[in-house]
Amino acid sequence: MLRVAVALAWQKKRVGGMRMPSTAARAVHALKDENCPILISPSLVSLDLPDVWASNPNPHDFPSAHKCCHATWCSGVLADCTANEQNAAIIDGKSMAEEIMSRIAFEVKRMKESIGKVPGLAVIMVGQRRDSQTYVRNKIKACEEAGIKSMMTELPDNCKEDEVLNALSRFNEDPSVHGILVQLPLPQHLDEAKILDVLSLEKDVDGFHPVNMGNLALRGREPLFIPCTPKGCIELLIRSGVEIMGKRAVVIGRSNIVGLPTSLLLQRHHATVSIIHAFTKNPEQITCEADIVITAAGVPNLVRGNWLKPGAIVIDVGTNPIEDPSCEHGYRLRGDVFYEEAVRVASLITPVPGGVGPMTIAMLLSNTLDSAKHAYDFT
Amino acid sequence: MLRVAVALAWQKKRVGGMRMPSTAARAVHALKDENCPILISPSLVSLDLPDVWASNPNPHDFPSAHKCCHATWCSGVLADCTANEQNAAIIDGKSMAEEIMSRIAFEVKRMKESIGKVPGLAVIMVGQRRDSQTYVRNKIKACEEAGIKSMMTELPDNCKEDEVLNALSRFNEDPSVHGILVQLPLPQHLDEAKILDVLSLEKDVDGFHPVNMGNLALRGREPLFIPCTPKGCIELLIRSGVEIMGKRAVVIGRSNIVGLPTSLLLQRHHATVSIIHAFTKNPEQITCEADIVITAAGVPNLVRGNWLKPGAIVIDVGTNPIEDPSCEHGYRLRGDVFYEEAVRVASLITPVPGGVGPMTIAMLLSNTLDSAKHAYDFT
Repeated sequence: MLRVAVALAWQKKRVGGMRMPSTAARAVHALKDENCPILISPSLVSLDLPDVWASNPNPHDFPSAHKCCHATWCSGVLADCTANEQNAAIIDGKSMAEEIMSRIAFEVKRMKESIGKVPGLAVIMVGQRRDSQTYVRNKIKACEEAGIKSMMTELPDNCKEDEVLNALSRFNEDPSVHGILVQLPLPQHLDEAKILDVLSLEKDVDGFHPVNMGNLALRGREPLFIPCTPKGCIELLIRSGVEIMGKRAVVIGRSNIVGLPTSLLLQRHHATVSIIHAFTKNPEQITCEADIVITAAGVPNLVRGNWLKPGAIVIDVGTNPIEDPSCEHGYRLRGDVFYEEAVRVASLITPVPGGVGPMTIAMLLSNTLDSAKHAYDFT
Repeated sequence: MLRVAVALAWQKKRVGGMRMPSTAARAVHALKDENCPILISPSLVSLDLPDVWASNPNPHDFPSAHKCCHATWCSGVLADCTANEQNAAIIDGKSMAEEIMSRIAFEVKRMKESIGKVPGLAVIMVGQRRDSQTYVRNKIKACEEAGIKSMMTELPDNCKEDEVLNALSRFNEDPSVHGILVQLPLPQHLDEAKILDVLSLEKDVDGFHPVNMGNLALRGREPLFIPCTPKGCIELLIRSGVEIMGKRAVVIGRSNIVGLPTSLLLQRHHATVSIIHAFTKNPEQITCEADIVITAAGVPNLVRGNWLKPGAIVIDVGTNPIEDPSCEHGYRLRGDVFYEEAVRVASLITPVPGGVGPMTIAMLLSNTLDSAKHAYDFT
């Protein structure tokens, strides 16, 4: 539990409000705090607690009050949502990510000066999806800023599986590569599972390998890498002073890369988790009971104000392009949450863009740095 | 989807009511139906469906009615639970398991006659926990009845980790062993994770290896083996004619061996799953919204009648010994569910004993048979 205590003490010390100090001030701070962990999120095994249930020794001792139907607030949400103009506090993911990135850059510099090595991230990109190209460009730009070496193999949309596997094998064997990222989704004709299985566990900085996923799910175990977006969501919550244990959390969407690992990670943090997907009937009924809502459905404006419990904390992973000729690229990004309504009901909310997105990239770099430190036995 | 269709067609044909025909009749049936699968549960990948969300094209089109607070029935449950004497239908797990076991015995006999081989199950048992001894005895007895060869290594409570690992390695290498079971829990001084990691994936008939757990969690993938108790719960539900897709399911307990894989498996079947644990506040609030409740908390009488929605389907994995001098062994088994109350509220319920327990053993033998068929390429 020591690491948790240290992390929380550090959190109290560092996180005064929702917004972080300027980049320069943060860099100075980072230099001063070099003994503190870059991320506040604790190790998962350190969180493991025994499940001690309150037993009922006398089965005939009926509870005096029946507390089954939970609340009456729900019926008032619509009114709240239209009448209450008070805005939720905004979780400034961009600023938090910058703070982490400056700490990573400092660590990379220290590594280079100490042992003459830097972390290396390799990206395999198949095809020319515009969104994938944007994501990859942002990741490589972030690597450059942090001093992490990046390599990229681009393959055509109609490439053979062997070409992807060969590229992967080369990166698996290259000792200067500490993280490998296969940009998803892959074209339909490629076997995603087969390709991800070949990726070296020790370089699986996306955390999508079944061994890492299994170890994320299983208490008493620790994956080598936690998937970046879920890890970023938890980091955002902890940095915002949110206590996760015992909270009701709803995860909307169950993708292998976001929804599933997010639900597993929230459980490791002792939230009571419900997972909503496209086959869920009346998803708003469940969502409106949640203290924490993390949504990754990929559906713009899915979560309305009346889906939320007043005071809920909302993390919006959705980044859905909406056509808008007035914008530079002809589209603008919109989250899964109807932001203008939600901001009147929630107590804390991430914007889109500028919320989860930058944090995901920061977590990728953090995983790559951790991998390199492990490879070089550098502390 | 073909396999699902076949399985469901078979289900319609075979499962008339809650109770199966006599053992003899079943055996004849099994002989006649030898082309049908032994288990009705379909492969997981065959269940994978795309999550197509109903999008909201116009974000200003507010739902006309706010349906957030789900029902008023909850407040009436206590009254129902004491006043309504109508019993739930009982899911006869013992009888269903016998039916499956007779099919397995038939297949083992067919294998022996065709290729002169039988499946082999090896058990490693450390220490002398009374409950573990009972479980292992029952498993070995079931193997004998089905014609499966069983082997057992018993080690003292204070044995060294190397002794367990050596026993495991011998069974890993023995081609006549197709399933290995390390009876849990292990004594505290042994590293359970390290030991389970050594167990050959191809012989992990308990399905506890992180690779199998990761593949159970990840859509698009199929674990080599599904953990026996969760697999048995789903088989009980399907054989009872319960449609899982779209249902709200609550899993009580989040152990690595039951709660976690059960929640993952229910999700693969497209239920909307909430996981309750000891840190959940007001668990009865969430449980009383569930269409399907699967409880594996290990707390006798935890789930009261007023925790249940009228008509709920209740699968009780709990097998808690309660001191009772009037019983043969000085104790009797009690589930997590307060049965006498629940039976008045639920529509379907498993008894303890005679519900999940026999099905768990049947699934272990089914996994061992599948493993042997795979090893010998026997169809």
